[in-house]
Amino acid sequence: MSPRSPDADFSARLESAARDIDNLLQHLLSDAPMPGEIARPARLVEAMRYASLSGGKKLRPFLVIETAALLDVPRDRALMAGAALECVHCYSLAHDDLPAMDDDDLRRGRPTLHKAFDEATAILAGDSLLTFAFDILGRPGTHPDAAIRIELVTELARAAGIGGMAGGQMLDLAAEGRFAENSAPLGETDVKTLQAMKTGALLRFACVAGAILGQASPPQRAALARYGEALGAAFQIADDLLDVEGDAATVGKATGKDAATGKATLVGILGIPAARDRLAQLVAHAHDALSPFGERPDILRAAARFVAERPK
Amino acid sequence: MSPRSPDADFSARLESAARDIDNLLQHLLSDAPMPGEIARPARLVEAMRYASLSGGKKLRPFLVIETAALLDVPRDRALMAGAALECVHCYSLAHDDLPAMDDDDLRRGRPTLHKAFDEATAILAGDSLLTFAFDILGRPGTHPDAAIRIELVTELARAAGIGGMAGGQMLDLAAEGRFAENSAPLGETDVKTLQAMKTGALLRFACVAGAILGQASPPQRAALARYGEALGAAFQIADDLLDVEGDAATVGKATGKDAATGKATLVGILGIPAARDRLAQLVAHAHDALSPFGERPDILRAAARFVAERPK
Repeated sequence: MSPRSPDADFSARLESAARDIDNLLQHLLSDAPMPGEIARPARLVEAMRYASLSGGKKLRPFLVIETAALLDVPRDRALMAGAALECVHCYSLAHDDLPAMDDDDLRRGRPTLHKAFDEATAILAGDSLLTFAFDILGRPGTHPDAAIRIELVTELARAAGIGGMAGGQMLDLAAEGRFAENSAPLGETDVKTLQAMKTGALLRFACVAGAILGQASPPQRAALARYGEALGAAFQIADDLLDVEGDAATVGKATGKDAATGKATLVGILGIPAARDRLAQLVAHAHDALSPFGERPDILRAAARFVAERPK
Repeated sequence: MSPRSPDADFSARLESAARDIDNLLQHLLSDAPMPGEIARPARLVEAMRYASLSGGKKLRPFLVIETAALLDVPRDRALMAGAALECVHCYSLAHDDLPAMDDDDLRRGRPTLHKAFDEATAILAGDSLLTFAFDILGRPGTHPDAAIRIELVTELARAAGIGGMAGGQMLDLAAEGRFAENSAPLGETDVKTLQAMKTGALLRFACVAGAILGQASPPQRAALARYGEALGAAFQIADDLLDVEGDAATVGKATGKDAATGKATLVGILGIPAARDRLAQLVAHAHDALSPFGERPDILRAAARFVAERPK
């Protein structure tokens, strides 16, 4: 076998994770009801599939799979937890795109869910994907030990809810000046908190989920959490840079929107050159966090580089 | 002590359950973040409190508490499961009331969540309440055994999601003729399925949750599930009768809406007298289901009567 660079390996393994997650979600989102379900309305299943099987990169499930693999977790368990996480991510995109929220028509180069279906269906499909995530985590296929499964439930609920992703979206809308009570422009600390909640919490959860599935030691789990936090912060800066520098055709959604809506970003506060420096530091932090694992997690190091260098 | 009738007892215990659930939700929905949460945005917490502490009867938590009490479950555990269920019920009301869904301005005699706040906040508060329900179920205070907690998670996810409540709301919107593909009027069987999903599934879950917490034998659990199903079906017919016969001032929300929107109900299909007969049969079924427990669950028998005879 010829040696491959970690980055070449990364692309292949990201694609393989995406393929496996798509296949699993196809299977989980079949038309047939599970025990405890009465019927699965066709339109709702279709909308859930449209939202979750729409060619995203599946970065979050990839992180679950690769952090779990580092701890020798069987891949089928990591795929279940990854599928649950992808359901939460895709529900949040569907709801964030709604007219009452960010009002976006385009997502991954296709009509957003409420454009392809309608608003009521988009709300219900989002609700159902969120609920389904906890159904998936509850299944023995995720892990035979109920204590592990319930820990995943708790961590995901905290990462996704009022004190995590949903709370972050609330802060983001407030920062746009939507509500009279929160109209002061955000400083750097506030923006970091907002972003740690809105996008960071789920990326961090992805890495913590691998640690939980692998019954990592507390220092190992803390290391993977730190990696996930640094990667999440890098992801957001890269995303904000893309919004400033990218064009809609390659990014797959509207660009230049942050400045137009007055959205608070670190790029806006620090300027592009300092934001690029910060991004490089965060990639270094992510790499450092992995040092207890030696050379083994090179694929996770490549993931941090990928997140920072997404093509414009 | 003077003897009290089961119905007098019922009112007192329903009120006591409502008070305890309100206090618990107040406590759970404090401003302070839990471990794993970053911050709780004030506006979002307020909206979640508005939606969940708004003077509803708290019938679902009451059913968890009383089915659990029948099996000698400590009350504080049943309150946790009941609070989780109330979060799911209140999220569903907040989302169903949205302009893109049923477009209601009034709920329990007060402005609906999106009227009191705004649509984006109502969507996010609903999302956060749904997520929070699983956080609550995951806590050791709900039950020290993780296997019991994960069983509650699975059952609640199935009852609330695509094959339960959310799916039922989808079928309901389809029955109104919203989507071209489902415009045929529903027959009796279809309406029963729709209602078993939309309102029945959570009421059934309330009773199953008591059985799970109490580690009921399979026949006991099946009996409580049958009770919950009969009660859920009775609840819906009583609700539809209220819509036809009640007035908005006492019902606390708009009435006469079902006929105006062409909503499929058993009252519409069977007519009022036959619907009243069906309601009486369902109360009898609910009572019969409890026979394995002897006289002890008189409070649950009173609950079935209450559901059928809600004041117009």
